[in-house]
Amino acid sequence: MKVTDPAISLPGGFRFSAVAAGIKASGRPDLALVEAAPNTSAAAMFTRNRVVAAPVEIGRAVLRKSHGRIRAVIVNSGNANCATGQAGKRACLRVCRGVAQLLRIPTEEVFPSSTGIIGVPLPTDKIVRKLPQLLANRKSTTRAMREFAEAIMTTDTRLKVASERIGSGAQQISLDGVAKGAGMIHPQLATMLVYLFTDAVASPVELKQLLKAACDETFNCISVDGDTSTNDTVLLLASGQSGTALKTSRAREGFQTALHRVCQSLAEQIVADGEGVKHVVQFEITQARSRAEALRIGRAIAHSLLVKTALAGSDPNWGRILAAIGACGVPLDPQRISISIGDELVCRRGSGCDFNAQNAHRALSQPTCNVRVQLGRGSASVVFTTGDLTEEYVRINASYST
Amino acid sequence: MKVTDPAISLPGGFRFSAVAAGIKASGRPDLALVEAAPNTSAAAMFTRNRVVAAPVEIGRAVLRKSHGRIRAVIVNSGNANCATGQAGKRACLRVCRGVAQLLRIPTEEVFPSSTGIIGVPLPTDKIVRKLPQLLANRKSTTRAMREFAEAIMTTDTRLKVASERIGSGAQQISLDGVAKGAGMIHPQLATMLVYLFTDAVASPVELKQLLKAACDETFNCISVDGDTSTNDTVLLLASGQSGTALKTSRAREGFQTALHRVCQSLAEQIVADGEGVKHVVQFEITQARSRAEALRIGRAIAHSLLVKTALAGSDPNWGRILAAIGACGVPLDPQRISISIGDELVCRRGSGCDFNAQNAHRALSQPTCNVRVQLGRGSASVVFTTGDLTEEYVRINASYST
Repeated sequence: MKVTDPAISLPGGFRFSAVAAGIKASGRPDLALVEAAPNTSAAAMFTRNRVVAAPVEIGRAVLRKSHGRIRAVIVNSGNANCATGQAGKRACLRVCRGVAQLLRIPTEEVFPSSTGIIGVPLPTDKIVRKLPQLLANRKSTTRAMREFAEAIMTTDTRLKVASERIGSGAQQISLDGVAKGAGMIHPQLATMLVYLFTDAVASPVELKQLLKAACDETFNCISVDGDTSTNDTVLLLASGQSGTALKTSRAREGFQTALHRVCQSLAEQIVADGEGVKHVVQFEITQARSRAEALRIGRAIAHSLLVKTALAGSDPNWGRILAAIGACGVPLDPQRISISIGDELVCRRGSGCDFNAQNAHRALSQPTCNVRVQLGRGSASVVFTTGDLTEEYVRINASYST
Repeated sequence: MKVTDPAISLPGGFRFSAVAAGIKASGRPDLALVEAAPNTSAAAMFTRNRVVAAPVEIGRAVLRKSHGRIRAVIVNSGNANCATGQAGKRACLRVCRGVAQLLRIPTEEVFPSSTGIIGVPLPTDKIVRKLPQLLANRKSTTRAMREFAEAIMTTDTRLKVASERIGSGAQQISLDGVAKGAGMIHPQLATMLVYLFTDAVASPVELKQLLKAACDETFNCISVDGDTSTNDTVLLLASGQSGTALKTSRAREGFQTALHRVCQSLAEQIVADGEGVKHVVQFEITQARSRAEALRIGRAIAHSLLVKTALAGSDPNWGRILAAIGACGVPLDPQRISISIGDELVCRRGSGCDFNAQNAHRALSQPTCNVRVQLGRGSASVVFTTGDLTEEYVRINASYST
C-alpha cells in the first residue's frame, strides 16, 4: 500500500496531544488525547473476550448514550484498567469527566481506552493531574499525531501509522490510522487499539458498516500469539470537515477500499512488530468450502507452536503445517491438501514431494514469506498473517509483570 | 501413585526387545518389539487428527481384522511414516509382514507404531534388516521392557514407565505401562505412544471400555504445546496369563483404578519431560456447569502462550489466566471467577485482591504447582496438567528437521 506523507493528508477536524504521566515505569509518554470537531461521527469494534476492561465497558456505553457522537478520545498506556471491579469503572469515569470539564463537552462524548498490565488499579491521580497540560498541548499536526501514536505503545518497538486519500480536488477525503499492539494479538475480534480518523461526512451507522467489513478482512486475519486481549478497540471517527459525503456507491466503495488498505497496513505493521517476531508469514488458504472454513484453518496453522517455532528456524517443516490443519476440526481429506512454501511445492495431495529444501529455506528466511495451502474442497480463500515464535517472545513475556 | 519394582510386577505373557537400526541420526536404539502370548486381547485409542500416519491406519485395520487379538507390537522412532502416501502404507505393511514371518503369526496380529519426523519415507530396508536380531533378543525381563521404553523415545529425556498390582495371592493381576512423548502433546485424543501390558483375563470389548475411561481422565487432560500429533496411539494388551478375570464389579473397579493410576502417572511424566518444561502446573478448574466446560477452560488456559510464558518466569500474572478464560467461548460471568496460586487467593470475583506476591512467586517456582480457578457456575471440575513455555522449547523446535 501507498503510505502518503501524513503532513499532506492529515484529515481536518482532529487535534492530538501526548504527555508522560508516570504510569509507565520507564517515564515514557503514556497519556494521549484526540480532540474531534463538533458533530464528529463515531463507530467502534471491541474485543470479544468475556473479560473486558472498564474502558471497553464505558466506551460501549458512551457510543450508545451519545448516539455515535464523539468529541474526545483519552488513552493511557502502562495500565489496562482490567479486572479492577467497580473501582476501575469509577476511575475511568473520573478521567473522562476530567477531560469533559476541561473541554466543556458532555462526559458521554469522551471515549476512553487503556492498555497495559491487567489487575492493577489505574493511577487516576497521576492522570488527572496531567490533563490540563495534555489539553494545552493539542495540535492538528502530523507530529502531534505521531506523538499520540507513540504514547499509546506498550511493548511495541515501532510507531504504526497509515494514510490514504480518496478522490481529488474539492471532493478529496483523507483517512489516517494509528495503532498499537505487539502481544496478546489474536483474531476473532476487533484487535488491539486502533484509531482511524477521516474528514468524510458519514453517519455513525454508515461508519459501523464500513468498519465491520474492513476489520473482518484485516485485523481478524492476523495473530501474533493467539491470546485475545481484554481491551481491544478499533475506533473510526469522521469529522465531516471535508464536506464530502459517501452518497454514491462509487464514493462508498472508494472509501471502503481506502479503509481496507489502512487497516491492512496497520494489521501487517502489528504482526511485523509482534513481540520477538523475526519473520512475517502470509498463509494463503485456498480452495476451502467457505471463508469461515478457510479462516478456521488459517487460525489453526497460525496458532500452532510447532509451526511458529519452525518458522523461527526458517525450517520448511511442512509436516507440522499438515498436522495443524488435520487437528483443527474441519472434516477434510488430507489426500487433497497441497502446500507450497514460496515457489516450492513441498507437499502434493497429502504426501511429501521432492523439493529444493534450500529454496524453501531461503524463502522462509526473508522478512516476509508466502505459504500457500490448497485444500481441494471449494473456491473460498483467505490470507492469514502471522509471525514466528522466537526465544525473544518467551524472554519478553516470562518477565513482564515482575 | 506407588511405583512398584517392575522386577516383581512384570505381567506374564510379554517379551520385549530393542535395537539400533540407524533410523535416528544419533545411532541410538530406534526399533522396538513386544511379543505377546497367544490369545492376548487388545484395545487401542488413536489420535483424532484428520491427518494420520500409515501405522495408525494399519493399526486400526489390524485390530478390526484380528477381532482385537494381537501377538506383536513393532515400533520405530526417528520417523513418523506420516504424509508418505500409499508408499508409506506399503512400507509399514512390509515391516509387519517381516515380523509375522519370523514369529510365524498372521500379519493382522502385528500392531505397528512410528514416531519422529513427518513426510520422510520410512527407511524400510534398514528396519527389515534388523528384525532377526530384534527378535532373537526378546526377553521377559524388566530390563528388556526398559530398553523397549528407551528405543521409542524421540525428544524425551527420561524413560516413562509406571506399574501397579491389583489383588493378591493367586488372584493378583499386574499392570505395566510405557510411554513416550515430549512435544506435539495436546488433549482431544488418546495421546502419544503409550503401551499398557497386563496379565488380566479380559476381552477386547472389556479392554476398550476400561481404556477409554482411563484416557479421558488422564491423557486427555494434559498439554505440552497444544499441537495434536498424527501418530498418537495408546494400546492396552491383556495376556490373560494371571488366570484372573474381571468378572465381579469389584474386580473391574480395582482394575479401572489401577489403570487410571498408571495412565495418570505416565501423563504426568510426559508433561514433566515436555520439551523445555521447567515447571509443571496443575490447573484445578472447579465450579463449572459440566465436565466438558471445565475441560474447555482448562485447555484454553493451558494453550495460552502468555500464561505459559508467565509460568516460565514464575510470575503470578493472574490477569493472563483471567483473559484466557474470558476468550475461550464459554458465556461466563467474569465477576464470579476467583483464582488462587498455591495458597494465595490472587483474584476474587473478577478483581485483583491484595496478596503476598512473594508467596505466589515461591509457589510457582516449585517443580509442581497448583492453580485453582473457581467459576461460580456449578459443581463440575477437572484437573488439567500443563507445563511452562521456555526459551528451550523454542530452541528445540526451531531446529528440529534442518
